[in-house]
Amino acid sequence: MNTNSCTMIIFGATGDLTLRKLIPAIHQLKWGGYLPEDFNLVAIGRKPKDDAEYRENLLDGMKTLTNILVEQSTWDYISERIHYFKMDFSEDGEYERLHAYLEKNKKENNFSSNYLFYLAVAPDKFGFIVKNLKEKNISSENGNWSRLVIEKPFGENLQTAYDLNDEIAKAFNEENIYRIDHYLAKEMIQNITMLRFQNTIFEPLWRNTYIDNIQISVLEKDGVGSRGGYYDQTGALRDMVQNHLLQTLAITAMEPPASLGADDMRDSKVKLMSELVLFDPGKSKTDVIFGQYEGYHNETGIAEDSETETFAALKLFIDNPRWKGVPFYLVTGKKLSEKSAQVTIQFKNPAVCNASGKSNPIYELTPNSCANILEIKIQPREGIHLRLNTKKPAVEDQSVVAEMEYCQSCQYSFNTPDAYEKLILDVIKGDSTRFTRWDELALSWYFIDSIDKKSVPLVSYKDESEGPQEADLLLKRDDRTWWFKEKIKRGES
Amino acid sequence: MNTNSCTMIIFGATGDLTLRKLIPAIHQLKWGGYLPEDFNLVAIGRKPKDDAEYRENLLDGMKTLTNILVEQSTWDYISERIHYFKMDFSEDGEYERLHAYLEKNKKENNFSSNYLFYLAVAPDKFGFIVKNLKEKNISSENGNWSRLVIEKPFGENLQTAYDLNDEIAKAFNEENIYRIDHYLAKEMIQNITMLRFQNTIFEPLWRNTYIDNIQISVLEKDGVGSRGGYYDQTGALRDMVQNHLLQTLAITAMEPPASLGADDMRDSKVKLMSELVLFDPGKSKTDVIFGQYEGYHNETGIAEDSETETFAALKLFIDNPRWKGVPFYLVTGKKLSEKSAQVTIQFKNPAVCNASGKSNPIYELTPNSCANILEIKIQPREGIHLRLNTKKPAVEDQSVVAEMEYCQSCQYSFNTPDAYEKLILDVIKGDSTRFTRWDELALSWYFIDSIDKKSVPLVSYKDESEGPQEADLLLKRDDRTWWFKEKIKRGES
Repeated sequence: MNTNSCTMIIFGATGDLTLRKLIPAIHQLKWGGYLPEDFNLVAIGRKPKDDAEYRENLLDGMKTLTNILVEQSTWDYISERIHYFKMDFSEDGEYERLHAYLEKNKKENNFSSNYLFYLAVAPDKFGFIVKNLKEKNISSENGNWSRLVIEKPFGENLQTAYDLNDEIAKAFNEENIYRIDHYLAKEMIQNITMLRFQNTIFEPLWRNTYIDNIQISVLEKDGVGSRGGYYDQTGALRDMVQNHLLQTLAITAMEPPASLGADDMRDSKVKLMSELVLFDPGKSKTDVIFGQYEGYHNETGIAEDSETETFAALKLFIDNPRWKGVPFYLVTGKKLSEKSAQVTIQFKNPAVCNASGKSNPIYELTPNSCANILEIKIQPREGIHLRLNTKKPAVEDQSVVAEMEYCQSCQYSFNTPDAYEKLILDVIKGDSTRFTRWDELALSWYFIDSIDKKSVPLVSYKDESEGPQEADLLLKRDDRTWWFKEKIKRGES
Repeated sequence: MNTNSCTMIIFGATGDLTLRKLIPAIHQLKWGGYLPEDFNLVAIGRKPKDDAEYRENLLDGMKTLTNILVEQSTWDYISERIHYFKMDFSEDGEYERLHAYLEKNKKENNFSSNYLFYLAVAPDKFGFIVKNLKEKNISSENGNWSRLVIEKPFGENLQTAYDLNDEIAKAFNEENIYRIDHYLAKEMIQNITMLRFQNTIFEPLWRNTYIDNIQISVLEKDGVGSRGGYYDQTGALRDMVQNHLLQTLAITAMEPPASLGADDMRDSKVKLMSELVLFDPGKSKTDVIFGQYEGYHNETGIAEDSETETFAALKLFIDNPRWKGVPFYLVTGKKLSEKSAQVTIQFKNPAVCNASGKSNPIYELTPNSCANILEIKIQPREGIHLRLNTKKPAVEDQSVVAEMEYCQSCQYSFNTPDAYEKLILDVIKGDSTRFTRWDELALSWYFIDSIDKKSVPLVSYKDESEGPQEADLLLKRDDRTWWFKEKIKRGES
């Protein structure tokens, strides 16, 4: 049995994710030489199509919807291995046909029986599909492997996540379930681990003795777009904070893992998640801000009286010796003035601070004017920025800020693989380091569910603004400011 | 009595230092608005000249020997206040004439009786001049001040330094003696203090727990030039290491001073100097390397059988809790392939190190391939350089080096004052922070004298090379490399 082989079965073959992310990722994997030798892709969709038409749709999509440079010989290679299979996956009876199809191809066309099932469909279909894969004996682990990839959202709260997990767990073992959080595959998110543990100048400082606060911001310029129906049921807290922001927080703040292997890494994240200080109604009211952009109600698919938040800012604490007393400020929102994601580490003020206000007018606004700042820039630009204090030339006893920049995306712009490329390869290899384990996920919902949403004020903010002013007060109360706003003032990217 | 006034009296008015450094510094001080209102300069020389001729010499010198932009109105202002006084300062009798000249000008031309005596003459004249200033009542401290500025070398060893100091101490109190080490006025040397104490990310790391070794390199491209006669009697150890390199070391390694005031700063440096581990003959042989460039004997003023070192490299330790076990490597030399001075802090290897050799071939040569490096660049370029480890994009578990640069001289090139400008202003203000106190000086000689020069091998090195190979072995033994050589290999400045 060839271990370097795989049959990938996509449910939702004509959807956006398949066109924009999955097929381009397969193209790039082949182009980079990472695709297994025996590879086939079975694309399951409801619409009647033949292979030729479907392949043409994919090629069109790649050329018009992505910035992938399609290489002809690479495309020829993979398109031959892409097979369209018309099927209504909400029909029980259809699964026997799928089983027969796969068995036939295994025998006649040497399809690998290492199955990678990718559910690129609405989450309410997950349970049904998985149940049928199991019952119709399509998924199996008799010597070969069957792995299941699930997109977010994984539940809407702890209870629904539990229910969904129960259904899936009947068909797949935990180690074969790959819950995608594509943030975990972003270069700079992975870099956080390396920055922390492979730099002697950072590791000893990564604690409350030296760090004043940590900010995680994920800002979007776009509104809800065509996802209004889904988004209006979900909101920023569940769509972004529960997964991407909490995962980023966990990687930034976790204790050093025993190794960088999947289970050790996730054990550390789980420990961190379990130490998040829960909200009570009082804290929900003061330490969480929800916002909604003014134009939200004009978008397609939004309920008339919708009170869904498109912006969330929160202040949280971690109850362990490393982080006791250090606030973590998280912020995310749609329809803001810029698209950017970053982690900002603000170190404590040094004992001596003679900042020269004049040359840095912006710093006069903040009381932490001598604080060293480490920015880990996740997107759109990837890199590291460090603010140090140096002597103001020609002037005694005054410091000015020295800005030090490492722009990773400037150096590697064409080589950085997309998150999906890395994640699909991870599943093929059976490496689940960058996927969310059930206990992590359960704890993140447990934390999110502690927010008493009814107590949280929902405020309005202008489209393309920096979000509601109320979010500023969250930090102003603590004599702090949002670094993403400092940067906008300073015209930095 | 106007405290904002000064009469500067230069001995050695036609010498190189006066032309190249002192007069340009006065020009710049006036231009910048720092010169006292009542300022006069009495320039003492042996050659017969009138004021007009002397002033013309100075202007010529400034235009041809320096890169100062002479501003006409500034020059007009200071040149009127420069008075040439012909005098043979090795004649006892001449000092009464000087006294009368100064008294007369005090009465008739309102010369300030705050006297700044600047000895820009050979050191063997120091004692005689100072004795006469005292005996002929020229220096006095009756309500006004008399300050004495002395250039290096201050002695040739501990004994001669003691003797010289004794002579000077008869005429001037310690607080009025300003021993110049112009290195202490260099922007980046001063910046070391600020970098250490005003950056939370550096202060806690500045110790043997996190630092592997510290290197101080001061490299010169020039040979001995016209200073052969002096240099051949002095050598690199006394000309450079005893003063510039040890002062740089002291500022880099001293305990945090109680304040940044003159005495607190120098108390800290003195403590550090007293903790330098002395050499014995065995250590002199193994831990000190002397070199002489091949063309040295062809230079003017060099003894035929001269064994004077034009290159010195040494490894030393500091016996205190902060630095126990951390080697400090010092290197200086003439006629090398480049002119540069810098302090390099090499941090210890992190616990985890997955450096990607391929992308950084140079690092394969060194065993410390994941070490964070902080370079404080003193000259010719001033700035800070930091090497971090980041994740190699697209590749799991491998790090690459991220280079972060802050080029101070790129930002402030036209505003940085010369060392002499700052030092003369310091003397006028009575601030001796950047001058060497006697106890510091004595301790530096005590340390230098512990090197048994007879035991130190003198090796030859090619002109315009990187110095003798023997200096490499000093570090290779310890599995380390000179960072200045790494940089040359990498083509960095």
